[in-house]
Amino acid sequence: MKIVLLGSGNVATHLGKALNDAGNQIIQVWSRTVSNARILADRLNAEYTDEFAKINSEADIYILSVTDDSIAPLAAAFPLKDKILVHTSGTTSLALEGISGVLYPLQTFSKQKEVEFKSIPIAIEGRDEPILLSLRKLAESISSNVVNMNSHQRKALHIAAVFACNFSNHLFAIAETILKDNNLEFDLIKPLIKETTDKIQNHSPASVQTGPAVRGDQNTLNAHLEYLRNNIELSELYHKLSQSIINFHEK
Amino acid sequence: MKIVLLGSGNVATHLGKALNDAGNQIIQVWSRTVSNARILADRLNAEYTDEFAKINSEADIYILSVTDDSIAPLAAAFPLKDKILVHTSGTTSLALEGISGVLYPLQTFSKQKEVEFKSIPIAIEGRDEPILLSLRKLAESISSNVVNMNSHQRKALHIAAVFACNFSNHLFAIAETILKDNNLEFDLIKPLIKETTDKIQNHSPASVQTGPAVRGDQNTLNAHLEYLRNNIELSELYHKLSQSIINFHEK
Repeated sequence: MKIVLLGSGNVATHLGKALNDAGNQIIQVWSRTVSNARILADRLNAEYTDEFAKINSEADIYILSVTDDSIAPLAAAFPLKDKILVHTSGTTSLALEGISGVLYPLQTFSKQKEVEFKSIPIAIEGRDEPILLSLRKLAESISSNVVNMNSHQRKALHIAAVFACNFSNHLFAIAETILKDNNLEFDLIKPLIKETTDKIQNHSPASVQTGPAVRGDQNTLNAHLEYLRNNIELSELYHKLSQSIINFHEK
Repeated sequence: MKIVLLGSGNVATHLGKALNDAGNQIIQVWSRTVSNARILADRLNAEYTDEFAKINSEADIYILSVTDDSIAPLAAAFPLKDKILVHTSGTTSLALEGISGVLYPLQTFSKQKEVEFKSIPIAIEGRDEPILLSLRKLAESISSNVVNMNSHQRKALHIAAVFACNFSNHLFAIAETILKDNNLEFDLIKPLIKETTDKIQNHSPASVQTGPAVRGDQNTLNAHLEYLRNNIELSELYHKLSQSIINFHEK
């Protein structure tokens, strides 16, 4: 399929490369910043522009991959009203002027690491059946895990991902800080993190919860809070998360 | 080496099996509950008892692997005062009457899953050099990652593990609940969790933080908090963790 990419951030870059590699043709990249448009366009062997008026009208699908705040104003201003314009946001609704579909790849994209798209779930939503079919065709060219989802479910998926991925990564960062403060290497804890996440590939996380909170080991909880007493933020997080574990497993 | 195991919980069970498989001899298992002592002893081809007076005096090392609260009273009551008695706790100090060393395997043990000990870090501490050498010999028979650590460092390691492992597992459980409430499968999010934890094997977690908080995407944060408004616990956790990410990355 012929695609115009609108945006040049992490999602646009990774998605553009994957679509290109899968045999689709990225014919043009638009970005507010022309230098960014050019860099990505060069990688994808595409044209580039920073002007809405010059957007190529030949594409089958136009993918708007920008920050959530920019989706509504750009979609409203998009000039090719009869074309399929989709956004790639988890939390933004389909119900926006100018938007006819959504293609949300559930992944954490960062510049430091290449991504294997084949196993990435892609949530799709479309204003009508033909649009949905076009989006499925496009999504299935890069992923074997394409799921129809309404805007409410997609937002729930995004929130679940924030808890499971963004927040847990932050907990890893906190662990690294605690270790460094005690002249210990973060490497020490990597096998444990790997074991924790390997476990939940085959078990419900709640069923394999371990640690002082779920054991009701109040002495250890107190010892840890005492250790963290000079760091209000960490002791508060420790307390809230432990309490949440206790509440969760009392139910 | 000849070992007596005191305790019959998860750590005692996994540690006993690993020590046994590595060619050490578990000569006896003690537990307050004689039926538990017998079950583990049978698996390890060992004697068993529930009486301190009958503890075999022939072992090189006595491993006290019980709940943190029970360590101090049991160690004080342990009858063989000239023998090496070690505990396996992260948070409990070496400085306890009757305790001459610590052997703390950094792992999340649960009955549902076998554990490969070779890559598990084991933190050791001893009252004197000969004890430390004995503990190193024993620990190295099951792990290639044995680290000397004082009690303060070991507690920090344990706290870091609670953040990185126990708390992140709870976040996975929260994610599963949110998904289920929206008729979505937890499977959807597994590739993302795997990618998140694969990343930090080679990158500092702080350097690969993604998500609305680190992007400063206030609209998405607000939309998520609005979504969670009827669940005080989750909205509070969402807010605290997002704020912690923001504070962490402003430093």
